[in-house]
Amino acid sequence: MVTEKEMKQEKQEGITVKKNEDFSEWYTQAVLKGELVDYGPVQGTIAMRPHSMAVWENIQKIFDKKIKRTGHMNAYFPLLIPENFLKKEAEHFKGFIPEVFWVTHSGENKLGERLAIRPTSETIIYDFYSKWVRSWRDLPVLLNQWCNILRAEIKSTKPFIRGSEFLWQEGHTAHATKEAADVEMMMILEEYRDLIENFLAIPVLLGQKSDSEKFAGALTTTTLETMMPDGKALQMGTSHNLGQNFSKPFDIKFLDKDGKQQYVWTTSWGISTRLIGGIVMTHGDDKGLVLPPKVSPYQVVIVPIYYSDEDKKVVMKKVADVMEVFAKNEVRMTADLREGYTPGWKFNEWEMKGIPLRIEIGPRDVKTKQVVFVRRDSGKKVVVKEKDIIKSANATLEDIQQSLFKNAKKFLDENIHTVRNYFEFKKIIEEKGGFVKAGWCGESHCEEQIKVETSATIRVIPFEKDKERSEKFSKCIYCERPAREAVYFAKSY
Amino acid sequence: MVTEKEMKQEKQEGITVKKNEDFSEWYTQAVLKGELVDYGPVQGTIAMRPHSMAVWENIQKIFDKKIKRTGHMNAYFPLLIPENFLKKEAEHFKGFIPEVFWVTHSGENKLGERLAIRPTSETIIYDFYSKWVRSWRDLPVLLNQWCNILRAEIKSTKPFIRGSEFLWQEGHTAHATKEAADVEMMMILEEYRDLIENFLAIPVLLGQKSDSEKFAGALTTTTLETMMPDGKALQMGTSHNLGQNFSKPFDIKFLDKDGKQQYVWTTSWGISTRLIGGIVMTHGDDKGLVLPPKVSPYQVVIVPIYYSDEDKKVVMKKVADVMEVFAKNEVRMTADLREGYTPGWKFNEWEMKGIPLRIEIGPRDVKTKQVVFVRRDSGKKVVVKEKDIIKSANATLEDIQQSLFKNAKKFLDENIHTVRNYFEFKKIIEEKGGFVKAGWCGESHCEEQIKVETSATIRVIPFEKDKERSEKFSKCIYCERPAREAVYFAKSY
Repeated sequence: MVTEKEMKQEKQEGITVKKNEDFSEWYTQAVLKGELVDYGPVQGTIAMRPHSMAVWENIQKIFDKKIKRTGHMNAYFPLLIPENFLKKEAEHFKGFIPEVFWVTHSGENKLGERLAIRPTSETIIYDFYSKWVRSWRDLPVLLNQWCNILRAEIKSTKPFIRGSEFLWQEGHTAHATKEAADVEMMMILEEYRDLIENFLAIPVLLGQKSDSEKFAGALTTTTLETMMPDGKALQMGTSHNLGQNFSKPFDIKFLDKDGKQQYVWTTSWGISTRLIGGIVMTHGDDKGLVLPPKVSPYQVVIVPIYYSDEDKKVVMKKVADVMEVFAKNEVRMTADLREGYTPGWKFNEWEMKGIPLRIEIGPRDVKTKQVVFVRRDSGKKVVVKEKDIIKSANATLEDIQQSLFKNAKKFLDENIHTVRNYFEFKKIIEEKGGFVKAGWCGESHCEEQIKVETSATIRVIPFEKDKERSEKFSKCIYCERPAREAVYFAKSY
Repeated sequence: MVTEKEMKQEKQEGITVKKNEDFSEWYTQAVLKGELVDYGPVQGTIAMRPHSMAVWENIQKIFDKKIKRTGHMNAYFPLLIPENFLKKEAEHFKGFIPEVFWVTHSGENKLGERLAIRPTSETIIYDFYSKWVRSWRDLPVLLNQWCNILRAEIKSTKPFIRGSEFLWQEGHTAHATKEAADVEMMMILEEYRDLIENFLAIPVLLGQKSDSEKFAGALTTTTLETMMPDGKALQMGTSHNLGQNFSKPFDIKFLDKDGKQQYVWTTSWGISTRLIGGIVMTHGDDKGLVLPPKVSPYQVVIVPIYYSDEDKKVVMKKVADVMEVFAKNEVRMTADLREGYTPGWKFNEWEMKGIPLRIEIGPRDVKTKQVVFVRRDSGKKVVVKEKDIIKSANATLEDIQQSLFKNAKKFLDENIHTVRNYFEFKKIIEEKGGFVKAGWCGESHCEEQIKVETSATIRVIPFEKDKERSEKFSKCIYCERPAREAVYFAKSY
């Protein structure tokens, strides 16, 4: 029985705007109505509800396995960082200071020194490394932590994308040589690419950051960027070689094989719950979330369909059988057996929540020994024989995963523009958005002017210099002097 | 080749005091030299090094599986709690206010309202629940979060046992009735007992807390307590029925089946990284840590023994074979193949780190197709045939697990005392420590006086009233009026 109250809810609960008409409002509704998040009392804070936490747990499992396979181990470092630690690396301090939450009291007592809530943990971790590293035998140090991070965001906060608190992993490694640190940085970047492209189904551009866009204190920052439907780039993760910029002020030294004191080379790298925002923006549609099967909390939801007690008995028996078959397999499945909601209400709810595959079982299906598959991505319905359920479910999930990636890749490719001159550059950035691939002289003056005039920044300096089409990018798009390389510009989150 | 520097280290690295001579110093050395932790810059903070983080990850895996099996899901709530939230439940506020770290600034800006770093999350979570719960259909809410907690500890901090920051899980559930909340509280208590006794090998006393020892704001607090070697009790976890004490000020209401508005009944429950401290104290010995196989990062460490290049070749070949056999099994194993350390140095290190089982493989063992097992708990050496390695390793690990529990149980049992009068009570508490089981009238006046005079508090009011020996406990140990029940007193951490 559906009560009047719930019938009303049904009408209200759908998403009321189209993704391509009001993207920002669509996103807000998608994450709230899809029950990923709710807003916290402090500006820019959210609660991650079970539906988003389960996505994050899946991402954690995948990435944790990857880094442990390559010798990394998890640790946990203090949340509170004395102000003088943050100040030791000047660039780093300048970069993070405006966003720091400061602790000034414990209980009734005023603290002697202000404590920062970690906006990132390089400084506190390096204080420990300076105690732990003595000899070349102690290297490399390959640690990671999964934790919360706080950065006070005042304006344009958006759940997952930009907030005052988020969850992430931060890897912090120390090596004997620059080369070893570079290898680490690039290996992690590749692990990120695999995670993001092959599990989250989001294609990315890989490359370096320009000096002005580097992590505060880094020698080299590498990045993975993708394009959102509103034409703004989203940075999905970064991996930095910090050189000896931190090991010197923090005095992390080791005795090398020749008995000489040397400073270590460090890297740091992170991905955060921002990835969930990327998933929502990339794959969602007018009905709400569309989650990639590989990280969706449930991959399959079974919805029984009946309108009489007699049918219910028959259908529920069959549902139990199918659940048993799934229980013996790896597929993450739930069955929505709640009373008092119509099948239609349930369809809407699970569509809004983005579960990749719905299996409907009604009385007629029981008789014909079949079930109905409904894909979340395409809405396509297929009748599947009972005996083929598992095989078909696995194949369909795999196909959905591939299809999501393919569509996102098509979108990304279509939104990389080339232009003949700065006039066209500005026009595209202002009117269409997306990436503009263009020549750059390498001077930060041009980069800065473009930012001031268009809000676009250099998102990626690709690793592979584009030889084939080099003529197109032979001149700096701004100053028209010879270009050093072709880079990707875009507005960004 | 072992360098002079390392030979020196070898001498330094052992634990320099005996567990039964200077327990506090022994503990400090055990956790530092066993590389579980290092001290942070802020009073009472620590870094959890990979060795302790891996124990915590094992505990997480075990408990997370347990609660998910019973329908709980993980979520994540904000770290920062506005001061007015904490104030809503008066008892709760009073209990936590002295320990709160206060955030007063973000960047350069003074905040309008002070923000507490969560000392526990009831208040912030209940603010969300008041938005999420509407109907009886929304109940129960069964959420948990794994997170960091901050409570400013000024004096007698001790890694894992009492610190300004620790990791924990906190479950927060909402139910339609008091009975349902009681069932939840007791079910979780039983899951904790299973975890602590059957995985951490630590026996516990179960029961309730007296009013004065309850969680600030709880209706009922249930607890698991055990006895440390220095005669002080350690609380290992608590599970609370919070009644409607929070649902009323936070206005968490639901429409019941009869259409009436009702307040929910909530529970909360937590275990923390303190459990690791309990493991160290309970099982450790003069050589350092002794980790229970079920939660030890590695269960087995293989150490090759050779003193010539010729032997090395033969031994390493065999080690590789044995590793391959282990790789196909569930046993968590590492092989210490580092160059430049003597086997003896490695033995000491892994003993200090508490790995349950060491497997030594030397040239003679290769010839005789056998290996040497050395148990960490007893130091006993056994020769095992190569073909029996896995079977024997599993059996030995199981035996170590059982043996650790048995010894700890014996210790606990021997340290539960009964006394004839208050004179004896004081004597035992002061001279021997341990639990004293004694009659109590139920009045907080007597409880308070005992605390003032002896520092002992009521740790546990057992669920089962002791009938068999009821005469012994027929009078209150303090006022000698008729006892309401027998309870366990002790000094505690």
